[in-house]
Amino acid sequence: MPQPTPLITLLTDFGTRDAFVGVMKGVILARCPEARLVDLTHEIAPGDIRAGALALRWAAPHFPPAAVHLAVVDPGVGGSRRPLVLRGAEALFVGPDNGLLWPAASRDGEPGGWEIVLSRWDRPVSATFHGRDVFAPAAARLAAGEPPEAFCRPIRDPIRLNWPRPDRQGRSIHGAVIYVDRFGNAITNLSPADLDHPAEGDVTFTAAQQPVRGPSSCYAAVPAGDPVVVLGSTGLYEIAINQGNAAAALGLAVGSEIEVHAAGATEGDQGQGDALIERG
Amino acid sequence: MPQPTPLITLLTDFGTRDAFVGVMKGVILARCPEARLVDLTHEIAPGDIRAGALALRWAAPHFPPAAVHLAVVDPGVGGSRRPLVLRGAEALFVGPDNGLLWPAASRDGEPGGWEIVLSRWDRPVSATFHGRDVFAPAAARLAAGEPPEAFCRPIRDPIRLNWPRPDRQGRSIHGAVIYVDRFGNAITNLSPADLDHPAEGDVTFTAAQQPVRGPSSCYAAVPAGDPVVVLGSTGLYEIAINQGNAAAALGLAVGSEIEVHAAGATEGDQGQGDALIERG
Amino acid sequence: MPQPTPLITLLTDFGTRDAFVGVMKGVILARCPEARLVDLTHEIAPGDIRAGALALRWAAPHFPPAAVHLAVVDPGVGGSRRPLVLRGAEALFVGPDNGLLWPAASRDGEPGGWEIVLSRWDRPVSATFHGRDVFAPAAARLAAGEPPEAFCRPIRDPIRLNWPRPDRQGRSIHGAVIYVDRFGNAITNLSPADLDHPAEGDVTFTAAQQPVRGPSSCYAAVPAGDPVVVLGSTGLYEIAINQGNAAAALGLAVGSEIEVHAAGATEGDQGQGDALIERG
Repeated sequence: MPQPTPLITLLTDFGTRDAFVGVMKGVILARCPEARLVDLTHEIAPGDIRAGALALRWAAPHFPPAAVHLAVVDPGVGGSRRPLVLRGAEALFVGPDNGLLWPAASRDGEPGGWEIVLSRWDRPVSATFHGRDVFAPAAARLAAGEPPEAFCRPIRDPIRLNWPRPDRQGRSIHGAVIYVDRFGNAITNLSPADLDHPAEGDVTFTAAQQPVRGPSSCYAAVPAGDPVVVLGSTGLYEIAINQGNAAAALGLAVGSEIEVHAAGATEGDQGQGDALIERG
Repeated sequence: MPQPTPLITLLTDFGTRDAFVGVMKGVILARCPEARLVDLTHEIAPGDIRAGALALRWAAPHFPPAAVHLAVVDPGVGGSRRPLVLRGAEALFVGPDNGLLWPAASRDGEPGGWEIVLSRWDRPVSATFHGRDVFAPAAARLAAGEPPEAFCRPIRDPIRLNWPRPDRQGRSIHGAVIYVDRFGNAITNLSPADLDHPAEGDVTFTAAQQPVRGPSSCYAAVPAGDPVVVLGSTGLYEIAINQGNAAAALGLAVGSEIEVHAAGATEGDQGQGDALIERG
Repeated sequence: MPQPTPLITLLTDFGTRDAFVGVMKGVILARCPEARLVDLTHEIAPGDIRAGALALRWAAPHFPPAAVHLAVVDPGVGGSRRPLVLRGAEALFVGPDNGLLWPAASRDGEPGGWEIVLSRWDRPVSATFHGRDVFAPAAARLAAGEPPEAFCRPIRDPIRLNWPRPDRQGRSIHGAVIYVDRFGNAITNLSPADLDHPAEGDVTFTAAQQPVRGPSSCYAAVPAGDPVVVLGSTGLYEIAINQGNAAAALGLAVGSEIEVHAAGATEGDQGQGDALIERG
């Protein structure tokens, strides 16, 4: 039976200005020439594990199930953090053991986990660029069909990364901004389930002392320049400004508190939604 | 007869910082695993339909004729604008019906036009990310060989996008800057035909009160730091500074007026050139 | 014998905002539809031949040996500089004859050299975009199997590009910063051989009046926010700040002087290392 073409996605905080990403691609193609390489992003802010973990979590599920996802946001490179392989339902994830891979790999339940054994590694390992020396060759080997067991030892304690859940206090629900995208849309940790599936205009989101009635059906539901809350493509509510930049205009950033007055909410009725996961 | 590998180009204003582009690529590859994906640019300024339309117009003709060009600069996402497929000579263009696709698709004459019928769409459609939910899957279906008729209805009134033509006033011709590139070169809407094919040094371009004698044969025809007018690779004249940034130094931006004194021009002799189209 | 898939890497200073890179890819794919395209970087600062040459030098050796490396940082476009093909051990390099290709192509010894003969070129050549009109089609022809001789004439005097070697003055060695990466790490021209292979903590690097004891084993060997010197992935020492930006914090830039007091160094014992070359 012909194998499908190996597919490797790449996500890093390396930027695209230096040679780092090109080097990793060269290393992969030298080992697995037929691999298809797809960039997710290389513009994660340096060291921002949480932003990288969200981007990976949001993108990976859309790829063919057997893809290998290579992710390197690695402020601890050269220290004691372990190089990691995780397996979700089918996809494999390769990167540092700092939580980066966790939200994506654990989407469909507890992932399988392995540590790449550097003492048996087949090439030299620099202190500063495990993307080149460890993670890219590991991804190439996995994409070429080697099982993780060929160069890893199983582990059961990969570092987990989670976000605070929304907090219900009487008739209001307290959440937070977890991501600000390029357009300045402030993505919250609040899902429809957290707010008891409000109809349009049923609730008020207060961010930076500014109340916004919502949710609305789309950005264009309000005049250009006005704030608006919509259910974003991630399955989470986001605070936006129609044809504007909400984060800049309202002073929102990751961690900004959001208070929602849900008129129809009753105490003791806790939302059960997974606040980071779109429903596919 | 073996089919050529499907080729899809991507142009958006999504930037490369967030997961948006990676998500679209995943969606495409899940539907059409053999598709080749080529990024045109994702750095169109948010919502700048005109800049996106020019970049698409300038890049698309260089690709193999049967390519599918996916373009998403979509400030009206979730509103009433239609999702569109246009067909030029052979290439297919997929994106919002806001003019973005028009200059590229109409290059070789009136393009065929279709509206993607969302009421029969085979997957959920969010209010904020039609790139993922509509345009990427549509491009994948077209690249995999489905005809537009399989999921579209024909339309005859796609939104057209054009630029003001140069205006002849006595012995001078008035044009405008239509694009500023990364190097600060200010691309005008003036072609050789508009200026009666001037020889080197035959005319004076006045931009922001600054006269520049031209055209010159290349940037390096003037000393480093001096302004220069050259016939750019798009087939249009551009105002540049040799080894410098003309837009910053001269205060030029999209819309800046350009006045050309064409010593050899005679009234009533109107240029016939297509001011946005390079001649291939 | 089946040929391997042609592989072309791309490095330019064109940025990713405009259509330039997409145009080049279209030109390549129209000529060599099966070519695999891999971006090294397009974010070289406009006209910065030295930065481009280093990025190419650092990335190219990691690719499969028969790759074609297309590089365009070309401030002299349209002037008298020659369009160039160089051949290293196996790889081919295509770009302007301004030194850009030299460090990568000469890695394994004197490269073969050819000038692309524009008077016999098979398509029109603009004055401003040889990436589209000359270098991309040349790379496509080489990737498709044409030898350089098919459209070039041999030359023996390609422009060479080198960096100052470290200078030993009594008990101190004077070097310089040659590159600053996205993380603000200041890469020097100093290799272990230049410093007589110092053990950890054996020497003091003084940059911008700030002494840093080193080398250290990794960034994380010092507290977050402290300066550190590590042997970087390029085989050169780099001045960094653990989880910070050394160039910004210490005021370092390309050309900044570095003085190293090597306690164990003896006069007359010159380092022999190649200061720009990692050892693979």
